[in-house]
Amino acid sequence: MNRLKELLKIKYPIIQGGMIWCSGWELVSAVSNAGGLGLIGSGSMYPDVLEHHIKKCKKATSNPFGVNLPLLYPDIEEHIEIIIKEGVKIVVTSAGNPKKYTKLLKSNGITVLHVVANSKFAIKSIDAGVDAIIAEGFEAGGHNGVDEITSLCLIPQIKKIINIPLVAAGGIGSGKAMLAAISLGADGVQIGSLFASSIESSAHQNFKNYILNSKDDSTILTLKELTPVRLLKNEFYDKIRIAYENNASKNELKNILGRGRAKKGMFEGDVINGELEIGQISSSISSMLSVNKIFKNLIEEFESKKSFLSHFNL
Amino acid sequence: MNRLKELLKIKYPIIQGGMIWCSGWELVSAVSNAGGLGLIGSGSMYPDVLEHHIKKCKKATSNPFGVNLPLLYPDIEEHIEIIIKEGVKIVVTSAGNPKKYTKLLKSNGITVLHVVANSKFAIKSIDAGVDAIIAEGFEAGGHNGVDEITSLCLIPQIKKIINIPLVAAGGIGSGKAMLAAISLGADGVQIGSLFASSIESSAHQNFKNYILNSKDDSTILTLKELTPVRLLKNEFYDKIRIAYENNASKNELKNILGRGRAKKGMFEGDVINGELEIGQISSSISSMLSVNKIFKNLIEEFESKKSFLSHFNL
Repeated sequence: MNRLKELLKIKYPIIQGGMIWCSGWELVSAVSNAGGLGLIGSGSMYPDVLEHHIKKCKKATSNPFGVNLPLLYPDIEEHIEIIIKEGVKIVVTSAGNPKKYTKLLKSNGITVLHVVANSKFAIKSIDAGVDAIIAEGFEAGGHNGVDEITSLCLIPQIKKIINIPLVAAGGIGSGKAMLAAISLGADGVQIGSLFASSIESSAHQNFKNYILNSKDDSTILTLKELTPVRLLKNEFYDKIRIAYENNASKNELKNILGRGRAKKGMFEGDVINGELEIGQISSSISSMLSVNKIFKNLIEEFESKKSFLSHFNL
Repeated sequence: MNRLKELLKIKYPIIQGGMIWCSGWELVSAVSNAGGLGLIGSGSMYPDVLEHHIKKCKKATSNPFGVNLPLLYPDIEEHIEIIIKEGVKIVVTSAGNPKKYTKLLKSNGITVLHVVANSKFAIKSIDAGVDAIIAEGFEAGGHNGVDEITSLCLIPQIKKIINIPLVAAGGIGSGKAMLAAISLGADGVQIGSLFASSIESSAHQNFKNYILNSKDDSTILTLKELTPVRLLKNEFYDKIRIAYENNASKNELKNILGRGRAKKGMFEGDVINGELEIGQISSSISSMLSVNKIFKNLIEEFESKKSFLSHFNL
């Protein structure tokens, strides 16, 4: 029996990344109903919005689902109160120190997974007592680590130093990539970009279209002096690029970024001036599919590639 | 039958990257004798040195071997003359336009593989008539592409648009990573860092020790304004980092880099002031092994992981 499936009580070892502006209850419940683990993306929600999405999700699925909790979030303690009050059973923490809230969450019967981008934080997470680790590579969308370690190098590196379940994230949008991740030592995968572009994603259609039309050189990891973020190149990014060419200061970069830039792009559909956070694998996504169809494709390709590999001789 | 093995007439679909200062005849012939394809790294050789290494290699192995030819190299036409005169049968071109020499090489009966880091150059390579493509991801050591596409994203992307054999490079230093690459669509792999650290590598022992002690955050892709290069962080890199912090111009960066910096580090063993080109996967290498032992390990791990995967159920 797969340890990750056992831990999360899910049918397939597939977690949907809890992405800002994409991961409302419609996406989350669809993923959980399909047999994966849906995650509400609380990073773009006020506490009352989070509460609403949790309540809707509980009605829409009887399967486990969770909440992604970016530890940088200003209202985080309110978020945690709601999560506990509503009886959410799984929390994925990211972008911060796992020691801060793991104990509190676990003492309330919550299973905790933490997202890391290097070995150092994997060890910190073990010390903090998390139940599983999500290792996220350089190719992942949105906020990212500073060490730029790719999934191919990161997964086996983390596997070597932990004994708890390991989830691979970053660059995974197909059954063959799932198989690659499992070959490298993962127990399961977290998939973001592919679900961001799904029918059930709450992202704006303009953003989804931008994903579907992206090429292999369409994303870039930038704003490393603030928090490194992978986004689709557009006119907003051009401003950042030009600022770098002119040796802009950290404050100037902050001013260009401004506030609400991701909402503008991903949720309101301003693909010119908005920030469009997505993974490098977006170039492989060419049509907007339902969550059910995505699961069907992932599983079919996984099985067919598995069979191909079993007949492959060196 | 594996197309790549057929094309190159080798026993295992494993190519040793033709790395500067590491890939002399000792390494190349050892790899070819072990059943892979050894590549002489001509990028760090004067024409007479290249000729010497080809002659030695012909005596040391009766199996196929090749030469890596960085197209930026100033004496390249002399190199090509020697390759043709000496009857080398396989050339891997990199870092340049594949249209420039592919026709000349092929008209002399040479099999040509070209290294690409994005889709655009894969298409250019097909147009140029190359026999196979090596797709090299962001995690690879030494000179690298500008688009920062990781192997996990690059391999399936290139696979989708070409029909000729595909070799995966970058981040591959184990049997499980070979299996991952093949799952993603590659016919075989090119391995660099692991062979750079081998007993037969002509790199300086100090550099090899530096590789063996590296951690997951020890390498960085830098000097992007000149030619992006992945190297191990050391005091020389600190100078680059500080220059960037002080908004150094392209010319100032060029001056810091100077000339002969890679030779100083990789061949002469000055790990403080030298440039130490290596891939991100170096963190997974912990002992200096012979080429034969490396092949044994790769194949055993590949087979054991293949068997594990065939029993893995989603």
